[in-house]
Amino acid sequence: MGKEKATIVVFSGDLDKVMAAFIIANTAAAMGKDVTMFFTFWGLNVLRKSILNLRAPNILQKLFSFLNRGGKERLPLSKFHLFGAGTFMTKLLMKIYKIPTITESLKIAKEQGVKIIACTTTIGFMGLSRDSFIPEVDDLAGASTYLGEAFDGKVNLFI
Amino acid sequence: MGKEKATIVVFSGDLDKVMAAFIIANTAAAMGKDVTMFFTFWGLNVLRKSILNLRAPNILQKLFSFLNRGGKERLPLSKFHLFGAGTFMTKLLMKIYKIPTITESLKIAKEQGVKIIACTTTIGFMGLSRDSFIPEVDDLAGASTYLGEAFDGKVNLFI
Amino acid sequence: MGKEKATIVVFSGDLDKVMAAFIIANTAAAMGKDVTMFFTFWGLNVLRKSILNLRAPNILQKLFSFLNRGGKERLPLSKFHLFGAGTFMTKLLMKIYKIPTITESLKIAKEQGVKIIACTTTIGFMGLSRDSFIPEVDDLAGASTYLGEAFDGKVNLFI
Repeated sequence: MGKEKATIVVFSGDLDKVMAAFIIANTAAAMGKDVTMFFTFWGLNVLRKSILNLRAPNILQKLFSFLNRGGKERLPLSKFHLFGAGTFMTKLLMKIYKIPTITESLKIAKEQGVKIIACTTTIGFMGLSRDSFIPEVDDLAGASTYLGEAFDGKVNLFI
Repeated sequence: MGKEKATIVVFSGDLDKVMAAFIIANTAAAMGKDVTMFFTFWGLNVLRKSILNLRAPNILQKLFSFLNRGGKERLPLSKFHLFGAGTFMTKLLMKIYKIPTITESLKIAKEQGVKIIACTTTIGFMGLSRDSFIPEVDDLAGASTYLGEAFDGKVNLFI
Repeated sequence: MGKEKATIVVFSGDLDKVMAAFIIANTAAAMGKDVTMFFTFWGLNVLRKSILNLRAPNILQKLFSFLNRGGKERLPLSKFHLFGAGTFMTKLLMKIYKIPTITESLKIAKEQGVKIIACTTTIGFMGLSRDSFIPEVDDLAGASTYLGEAFDGKVNLFI
């Protein structure tokens, strides 16, 4: 008998939602569960190196990459971003209350064996490639890999 | 023994989230699973004819229908809509990368037997009726129908 | 054999999403299911007394509490809030169509035995304490309590 499994689709790239995803994933892993996080769409920003992707094959992708500059240190809040002020304030509070940053959360996740997967469908679409991602990414895979795990999972969330 | 089942509540009417919902639904159906999509709130825009609903019984509903003009060709992005520019750019990229549009995704879903249900609670509230919807809708039903299927499902997502 | 269980994480504090959460929770409870709602992040606004929290230990929290004034009567729409006009319009329509308000929905939930839990991680972070919440809250608990119930649940949603 294997361990009970949880899967989380991280669709959002908002700081607050990504924090929630990591809190759930890392708590489940600490409880001895098998956890997989699938990052897709805006969630891919968590896993991207924080650089502009000006080598994207397409001019639209270059423009898009400017709007959507990646990097887990740059995620905005879903509310009260306020041109950065609300997000800055939140990060300060996170520091004061010793809530792990996204970088720290990712490190904890890796140490606990949480599987980190980047979704291939949106990778192509956004003009990204394996090189665009930080080394913490375990695998690039598509929706059928996700569903294979989700049909095996007991808790499946879309965030 | 029946097939394994997945249900997706499509609450959002944002292009990117609806795309994600269809990618998951159509992949699951291609894997031989039984899939039901419940469209509710803003998600109903996917299934509405793209016309103003000026025959809504209530003046507030007429106003609301102007703000929230339906139709699966008019869905905005959840981020970087940029008065239409970001959404236009995204649609161009979808064309280049041969990612199915929402119209094509819905066609594929229907061909694969994905059940398309429109939620009755929000239909009344938005001043809509059966006539407001495209013929691809299989059924109008409420939350108890959804829950009946979800308690039978192995993967249940809220998007 | 116990009853089948559903859990809902209410992350969002938007009127429309919270409405959807209560419709699902109350319908499931009416079907005889065991239901737990975990309110976290912006969702905590549903359970907060509608007052400014100027006794928060930290100046940043005081500022944040001003931006994010709580109270289930003040939740905005996720779309078309329009400086309050869209949200006001929606509330009027809810009244006309006899859709329960959030206050009424919470009352129905309590009467049906839905468990209402406020998430401790975000409570500390937002400078809130037990006193900040309405008496309808059954318990304050963290992510491991949530996961304990979710791994036991048949339907687990993140809203």
